[in-house]
Amino acid sequence: MNINFNEASKALNASIEKAKSLNIPVSIAVVDTGGHLMAFARLDSVYGVIDFAVKKAKTAVMFGVNSEIMGTIISGAGFHGYGMLNSNGGLLTIPGGTVIKNANGNIIGAIGSSGGSVEQDKEIAEAGARIFA
Amino acid sequence: MNINFNEASKALNASIEKAKSLNIPVSIAVVDTGGHLMAFARLDSVYGVIDFAVKKAKTAVMFGVNSEIMGTIISGAGFHGYGMLNSNGGLLTIPGGTVIKNANGNIIGAIGSSGGSVEQDKEIAEAGARIFA
Amino acid sequence: MNINFNEASKALNASIEKAKSLNIPVSIAVVDTGGHLMAFARLDSVYGVIDFAVKKAKTAVMFGVNSEIMGTIISGAGFHGYGMLNSNGGLLTIPGGTVIKNANGNIIGAIGSSGGSVEQDKEIAEAGARIFA
Amino acid sequence: MNINFNEASKALNASIEKAKSLNIPVSIAVVDTGGHLMAFARLDSVYGVIDFAVKKAKTAVMFGVNSEIMGTIISGAGFHGYGMLNSNGGLLTIPGGTVIKNANGNIIGAIGSSGGSVEQDKEIAEAGARIFA
Repeated sequence: MNINFNEASKALNASIEKAKSLNIPVSIAVVDTGGHLMAFARLDSVYGVIDFAVKKAKTAVMFGVNSEIMGTIISGAGFHGYGMLNSNGGLLTIPGGTVIKNANGNIIGAIGSSGGSVEQDKEIAEAGARIFA
Repeated sequence: MNINFNEASKALNASIEKAKSLNIPVSIAVVDTGGHLMAFARLDSVYGVIDFAVKKAKTAVMFGVNSEIMGTIISGAGFHGYGMLNSNGGLLTIPGGTVIKNANGNIIGAIGSSGGSVEQDKEIAEAGARIFA
Repeated sequence: MNINFNEASKALNASIEKAKSLNIPVSIAVVDTGGHLMAFARLDSVYGVIDFAVKKAKTAVMFGVNSEIMGTIISGAGFHGYGMLNSNGGLLTIPGGTVIKNANGNIIGAIGSSGGSVEQDKEIAEAGARIFA
Repeated sequence: MNINFNEASKALNASIEKAKSLNIPVSIAVVDTGGHLMAFARLDSVYGVIDFAVKKAKTAVMFGVNSEIMGTIISGAGFHGYGMLNSNGGLLTIPGGTVIKNANGNIIGAIGSSGGSVEQDKEIAEAGARIFA
């Protein structure tokens, strides 16, 4: 089961609404279960955070957990965690990458936000991620 | 003068409407004048064309002409054009990458479509590109 | 609003003057708002610092803050900041990358210096960055 | 014997003068005998030709002949030439990359121009390359 564009668009729009309500210039990326981009919006953020948003979403979906959970796992490995962070073209393990689940609880993709504080990015990503739960 | 998200979103939506009217599963990317992603939609295309759409848009904006015009220039160099195609992280010079101009005729970004025939991709990209002209 | 060559050349020359007055062999790079090179001078520095100068300037402009400010933000993320450093083709977050603003306070590009101490590189970059402020 | 900044700057300025007299928006790069950047000017060209200018200069200096001579050699290999074009991070074998020789006829670097016709780029590069000959 993989997210389709209609669903990705709904998730993205829910996150855009949240970002606008917080008045934060973020980038938001939605990826499918293969980590490939489905939908993206750069709400006039600086361009440096585009890659952050995409990497957060990819990190979440490629391990099946939110980016900060993978962060906790990897930081537990101490020095050796760098090898993991460098894997897969580069992970990003701060909050703001959230898996998207369908009504049955299956992961269908992930959404990543960057440009705000980690709390804001997490809130923005979750606004999009929870709409099918 | 650089495209903002509101404009990028309008251009993307116009291209999405065109793609839906043609019933073609494409990916569509909008980039700013620096070639950085502003908005993206994968209308349930195969994921291989995501990079095509992005590279078409980038090729258009980095040379200030539509992707197929750069294609004509490069193919005129024959064998030696291969080095140009490999530049800048890889160009894509088939139709479907179109510069976006504002009402004053200034380039503010570009839009790329991939997944259809070259005629369809060009038509889809142009539907989004012309809305500010 | 993007820096033009005339402006980039003026900024570069102001930084070159400062570097010569300090008698430090540095490399100095000026980029536009998209992070693309506008002007560059290698004042007989070792070639290893060319990439440092370019990455400092890019880091500044892609996040809209001086490189060391981005450094403070990223180091605040501790271990997880490593993923951010690896983003965007590699950031460089030590002092010496400075945004260039026009008289209206808008960012029009950035300038990066490398080859001296961080204090010297910062002083050299700022000499060029402040000439339009 | 390697070009120093003072020489690179003189060569670049001679090429800038030529480009301005032709009224062509080009990018011009000067590299040392190791192919590493010494000086660069983007005369308000599109950013896509930055990489062209750098690759032309590198192609010239890494083989010790002007870029179009390397082009003739490689195209003579036919199909097999693609492997050569792909080498060294990508060659560019159209005219406009010219070795810089000192008064003794020794190669001390190279200069590349891109953004004009191949004739113009060659003329611009040669204006800078010949000032020490």
